[in-house]
Amino acid sequence: MELVVKKFGGTSVGDLGRIKHVARLIHGYLTLNPQHKVVTVVSAMSGETDKLIQLARSCVENPAPREMDVLLATGEQVTIALLAMSLIELGVPARSLLAQQAKISTDRSYTQAQILDINVDTVRETLEKGQIPVVAGFQGVDEEGNVTTLGRGGSDITAVALAAALEARACYIYTDVPGVYSADPRICSRAKLLSRVCHEEMLEMASLGAKVLHPRSVYFAMRYKVPLVVMSTFSPGSGTWIVREEKLMEKPVVTGITYRLDDAKITIRKLPGGIEALSQVFGSLARADIFVDMITQTGLVEGRTNISFTVPDELSSRALEVTQNCVPELGAEGASLERDIAKVSVVGLGMRYHAGVAARMFEALAKEKIDVQMIGTSEIKISVIVPRKYCEVAVRSLHDAFMEMKPEVNEEQYPPAT
Amino acid sequence: MELVVKKFGGTSVGDLGRIKHVARLIHGYLTLNPQHKVVTVVSAMSGETDKLIQLARSCVENPAPREMDVLLATGEQVTIALLAMSLIELGVPARSLLAQQAKISTDRSYTQAQILDINVDTVRETLEKGQIPVVAGFQGVDEEGNVTTLGRGGSDITAVALAAALEARACYIYTDVPGVYSADPRICSRAKLLSRVCHEEMLEMASLGAKVLHPRSVYFAMRYKVPLVVMSTFSPGSGTWIVREEKLMEKPVVTGITYRLDDAKITIRKLPGGIEALSQVFGSLARADIFVDMITQTGLVEGRTNISFTVPDELSSRALEVTQNCVPELGAEGASLERDIAKVSVVGLGMRYHAGVAARMFEALAKEKIDVQMIGTSEIKISVIVPRKYCEVAVRSLHDAFMEMKPEVNEEQYPPAT
Repeated sequence: MELVVKKFGGTSVGDLGRIKHVARLIHGYLTLNPQHKVVTVVSAMSGETDKLIQLARSCVENPAPREMDVLLATGEQVTIALLAMSLIELGVPARSLLAQQAKISTDRSYTQAQILDINVDTVRETLEKGQIPVVAGFQGVDEEGNVTTLGRGGSDITAVALAAALEARACYIYTDVPGVYSADPRICSRAKLLSRVCHEEMLEMASLGAKVLHPRSVYFAMRYKVPLVVMSTFSPGSGTWIVREEKLMEKPVVTGITYRLDDAKITIRKLPGGIEALSQVFGSLARADIFVDMITQTGLVEGRTNISFTVPDELSSRALEVTQNCVPELGAEGASLERDIAKVSVVGLGMRYHAGVAARMFEALAKEKIDVQMIGTSEIKISVIVPRKYCEVAVRSLHDAFMEMKPEVNEEQYPPAT
Repeated sequence: MELVVKKFGGTSVGDLGRIKHVARLIHGYLTLNPQHKVVTVVSAMSGETDKLIQLARSCVENPAPREMDVLLATGEQVTIALLAMSLIELGVPARSLLAQQAKISTDRSYTQAQILDINVDTVRETLEKGQIPVVAGFQGVDEEGNVTTLGRGGSDITAVALAAALEARACYIYTDVPGVYSADPRICSRAKLLSRVCHEEMLEMASLGAKVLHPRSVYFAMRYKVPLVVMSTFSPGSGTWIVREEKLMEKPVVTGITYRLDDAKITIRKLPGGIEALSQVFGSLARADIFVDMITQTGLVEGRTNISFTVPDELSSRALEVTQNCVPELGAEGASLERDIAKVSVVGLGMRYHAGVAARMFEALAKEKIDVQMIGTSEIKISVIVPRKYCEVAVRSLHDAFMEMKPEVNEEQYPPAT
């Protein structure tokens, strides 16, 4: 039995017409692949979850998280019912399954629960009866039977976790774009649709702003070795396969250029050197639940250093306040916030084997006279912080600089079936 | 422990302001009655269930009943979450419970399921933790864990069934009117709010069109001896208690005058006499799922009779068709439909012990020159069919004729506590 999981996001089921389109798409797939079994996972209709959050916030100031999850879970409940009805009308037997029916067990961290286990008995029984299970994404149930939700990107996680538990051949993520591009096609006209990337690259790209997949779901897919396919619900195409590194024929030096506009930069001037000061600053930020991304430090001048770090933009005012509260005690000169920044990154597995990526990157940016304010690196990516107004120019120039480079060839040639 | 169940209907939770009002009402009740425990049951926000039905029907022609119930159940899920949040914000610990959490077991007749059993363990545990259970009305779960719904009036049934299972002292039904009236106050200005009626009377009045309670819930309350209280969510007052007959101090000859405009009348002219013909007509109607209410027959003239019966107005065209199909075979002259009729009834326990109610009824109608087309009686009610245009006049004249009569006095004086 060839089993695949197909997940349809909020825009794919955004109205009744689209829900019926999804039903026809599944019907068409089964007609072409009669030997396949399909498990579907759906999100709430786009905008519905935000509407429910708004409803709760209009009702009370601080909605109790347990009750918030009971409320939010209705979003997916509506779509599974409508999709199951639409499939049945097309003559495709189907059966909607809520989280407690699909036995998706989570911890009890309401509004951001983690999946602990999926008992796939009901899903398998449903398949054995010849019915398509239509599973509510985004939701789970804790050991006491309380409704939980998985937070943003939750439906992708449900789909990947189900695919892992069912040992599915692949998990298809249907969305409103044809797949993953080498750069955002809205700002880089030469961006190419990638036919294959590996989980590690996709994880970096997702974290860095390629909004097609939530990093948590990519991480999950990587950990459980689930091949992912991202493709469009609305236009035919083969999409982007996200596979294990060893299944890639080629390892491009740079697979994609990504950017993110959601960060802000805080700089502490003339901080006395030494690990105690750093520890105090970042300890205070951690206690305030502020996530710090990049950190850079200038060399010591007269025993003092300038230190910069980036934080999520929506937390930046609070982060500045926390930082400024540390300033007097530490004897620093002051702290300031800069919000007009962009983080631009090049990502690619081949980077591991190829020297000179950073040099080529700086050369390309220098040609456009773009100042680099901070630099961060990992094994397979290099990120820079640049003034926000230069973001698009930076992406385009980096794309031009890297996309023509010859890829490394994988010796173990293994074309994944499509 | 004094335990009460309080059920809030769709208009009582019709918007966020009203949901917060309900939370304050419960908070106020508990402040005044600290020794009481309260279990709440809520409906979907008014109009929400119809909106969901509409959504399903816009999506597919014949929604699969199982999926319809998954969809409809979201309506109450939204209100339990919002009410629980609102209670928690007021400092009243609360916990929403879906049907599967409150363990409300039903058969699997989707969209019109019957409650088979309620295991009240979770509700009791919730109470023992000092939390108010906020239970979703209208929904249940079958033995395989499928979501079911109870049909129209379902939330009242949930409330009454819970009150029975918990052996609650009373089940309060909060609605948008102050209680049950001796006649519809919109058409009869002298209508009085009734402080007490018995289940049997209320059952007749509910079936006959007093829309405050669904007959199924009254039947349930009667069967399980649950005292019901109907009162307004919005204006203070003691409402109407619906109690066991033996708890009534007085048994008025006529408790109320009701009317219904939802019937149509079909007449078969010159049907050959004999039980075979009748059996064939009503057998055909039954096979077409058409519910027949009143039936009258004229005396035989030359071996033939005219027969009239009433059916729900929305089924009347189909009923006429079924009837007309029988006409040639039976050798009757023809069948006709009359839709402009009203059913007006007088209901009262005391009627059992009091002769002359029918006589007084006809006298009152004759005074207004209202023709009576059909007559039906039970132990505690007399119904007549009159032309629809005379409905309001008939109700007012009957109210005047009966409401001044002295009640029978119950020997076992038992004023129910309020």
